[in-house]
Amino acid sequence: MLDPRPGQIETMGDGECVTALRDHDLGRIAVVDRGVRPLIFPVNYFFDEGVIVFRTAPGTKLDLSLGASVGFEIDGWDPVQGVGWSVLVKGIAHDITQPRGAPTGRMRYWPVRPVAPGSRQHWVGIWANEITGRRFRTEARRPPLMAQRA
Amino acid sequence: MLDPRPGQIETMGDGECVTALRDHDLGRIAVVDRGVRPLIFPVNYFFDEGVIVFRTAPGTKLDLSLGASVGFEIDGWDPVQGVGWSVLVKGIAHDITQPRGAPTGRMRYWPVRPVAPGSRQHWVGIWANEITGRRFRTEARRPPLMAQRA
Repeated sequence: MLDPRPGQIETMGDGECVTALRDHDLGRIAVVDRGVRPLIFPVNYFFDEGVIVFRTAPGTKLDLSLGASVGFEIDGWDPVQGVGWSVLVKGIAHDITQPRGAPTGRMRYWPVRPVAPGSRQHWVGIWANEITGRRFRTEARRPPLMAQRA
Repeated sequence: MLDPRPGQIETMGDGECVTALRDHDLGRIAVVDRGVRPLIFPVNYFFDEGVIVFRTAPGTKLDLSLGASVGFEIDGWDPVQGVGWSVLVKGIAHDITQPRGAPTGRMRYWPVRPVAPGSRQHWVGIWANEITGRRFRTEARRPPLMAQRA
């Protein structure tokens, strides 16, 4: 990731966002319950070809995501460097458990590895239609010793 | 946090969820755009008295959260211990920038410390009406040496 200038929030380029999505495997999906209430669930994922793939068991996450607009987010915060970033994906989720030819057939071979226990036989792909990212570095703090000397 | 039994997902108790919310200061809020599209934003927060307080600048996050149902989530994953957990809060967000007596007056003194640069003069409180949490430990993996001996 490019080194952000201190004290301002910067927009991440498309390439940076894609790299961040490729370099991580834990994100969060947001779905909407009953048309008004957003819910957030952490998921392990694999990203390629503009599609985020995760696996899940039957339940709320599956019911509310299929065929719907969903949000997907990854972020990071390094307290030592004072650098933070986040990438937000907007897309539509589709069931790819029973793939119908390419490209969904290929996706079923992607290394999607949930760390949570339990059978997760449903495969879901989020086709990204918008990917944006922001990063920042906190204002440089003067080291205490230097401050005393100044 | 209680030590989860390996290989299953457990429900966190109310007290555990509250403790987790108190012990952290970085979470994610989900809001709904145009009634259908959920968005996720990372925020620094402070939690007390059943209310999550964060600060923000004017923009999408503020516009879509005020008076609306929002989701708020924190999570953690320790790859060494194989322990993961997440807490999900459902609630309604209200503007407390101009507090009207207690308790919102008190909240304006809470230590809400955004790490991201920029002025964040709007204070928002999420009144939690449901807090749930889940935790798990991955299946115990047999150490390679033990496996060879068996």
